[in-house]
Amino acid sequence: MKIVIIGSGNVACHLARAFQENKIPVSQIFGRNESDLKSISHQLQIPFSTDYLADADLYFICVSDAAIGEVSKLITNEKCLVAHTSGSLPKEILEGNYRKASFYPLQTFSKSKNITYSEIPFFVEAQNNQDLELLKNLALNISKKVMASTYEKRKYIHLTAVFACNFVNHLFARAKEISDSQEIPFDYFLPLIKETTEKIEILEPKLAQTGPAVRNDQRVLKLHEELITNEEQLKIYKIMNESIKKMYEL
Amino acid sequence: MKIVIIGSGNVACHLARAFQENKIPVSQIFGRNESDLKSISHQLQIPFSTDYLADADLYFICVSDAAIGEVSKLITNEKCLVAHTSGSLPKEILEGNYRKASFYPLQTFSKSKNITYSEIPFFVEAQNNQDLELLKNLALNISKKVMASTYEKRKYIHLTAVFACNFVNHLFARAKEISDSQEIPFDYFLPLIKETTEKIEILEPKLAQTGPAVRNDQRVLKLHEELITNEEQLKIYKIMNESIKKMYEL
Repeated sequence: MKIVIIGSGNVACHLARAFQENKIPVSQIFGRNESDLKSISHQLQIPFSTDYLADADLYFICVSDAAIGEVSKLITNEKCLVAHTSGSLPKEILEGNYRKASFYPLQTFSKSKNITYSEIPFFVEAQNNQDLELLKNLALNISKKVMASTYEKRKYIHLTAVFACNFVNHLFARAKEISDSQEIPFDYFLPLIKETTEKIEILEPKLAQTGPAVRNDQRVLKLHEELITNEEQLKIYKIMNESIKKMYEL
Repeated sequence: MKIVIIGSGNVACHLARAFQENKIPVSQIFGRNESDLKSISHQLQIPFSTDYLADADLYFICVSDAAIGEVSKLITNEKCLVAHTSGSLPKEILEGNYRKASFYPLQTFSKSKNITYSEIPFFVEAQNNQDLELLKNLALNISKKVMASTYEKRKYIHLTAVFACNFVNHLFARAKEISDSQEIPFDYFLPLIKETTEKIEILEPKLAQTGPAVRNDQRVLKLHEELITNEEQLKIYKIMNESIKKMYEL
């Protein structure tokens, strides 16, 4: 089976590497950004092209949501299976007379960071059982956690991930702003951050909550509001504490 | 040197265990909650009392911020050193004619979760150098990371910790609300959460940001707002995305 990956961003790069590490050959990486493609191609020894899309049995479109529709039109082969990797689009976004699918890895990818692919949950959807099985088996070569999922469910998986990952990272960025402003090394907070996430592996997050809001400690909440000088930090501080108090009915 | 710990909550329990694991004897655990004290006493083989406060050279007051002042009056010995463990109070909150100090472990403690104490940063403050060295050396028995810190700095350390830990945990709790509502196991998100925090050990949080807001993906942002039915979730969703956009000037 010939596999082609379209895209040169974080997802394309990591998916190509995940396949390669698991002895699944990728015939080509195709995209617009020649320097990114060259870099992936060099690392993984996979041919790349910016103008000639190779013929394949299975294409993975790993480009931004907004570009998936346009890019999907480049595939004129009607005997192939095409999957996109977006968490927030139905497989019907793909515009072509081929079989359509979705192949969604639930992970945050940055090029410069290695990832243990075997832990990544993959959510797979296809038009027929044969394609679904094919994609599930392919994903099972990479990871232990492979599930079929409809678009309806996938949307909520992505939304949950935004809270649990994207917003969490932004809190780290805002936290670092505060510690930087006082010349406190952000490294000091890494054990705390590690413990915060390890804790929820054995304790429900709702039961693991600590801090001034859940203790309803008005003095500390007021003190912190006085310390904060950045408008965005203050908005976050207030909304998060309000939300904590509502959750615990304080 | 005789050490007494006052309190029976998460900090008292973990501080007692940290001392014990490092062969620093604790003479007594003193507090109000007999059943909690009994449990700690039983686990760590340390005598406890709810009415007789033992004489000691060094007391650690590990009670809620609001109770520290009152509790500190129980110590009538004037030849001792007394330290509280709060991130948000000056050592002067302690009311007595003894030497005063602060001994702040930067960590989130839950009784049911074991912790690697050697990684916890300790921030120490005292009235004189001798006491400061004593407390630093004591902390160095537990952890590799011991720093002197004024109250002025400690306040900001605590505030940063609220963003990086307490709010992060609340995001996990809100994320779980969403996944629960769709009968999606929260376990699916644990590898993503682990990666989110591991990533910032090698990449600045600001550079590690992913998700629809930093891509300025209006379609997904709108889609998510339509999916959310809980008012608190929606407020968090909007504020966090606004803050992300401001940080990246989108």
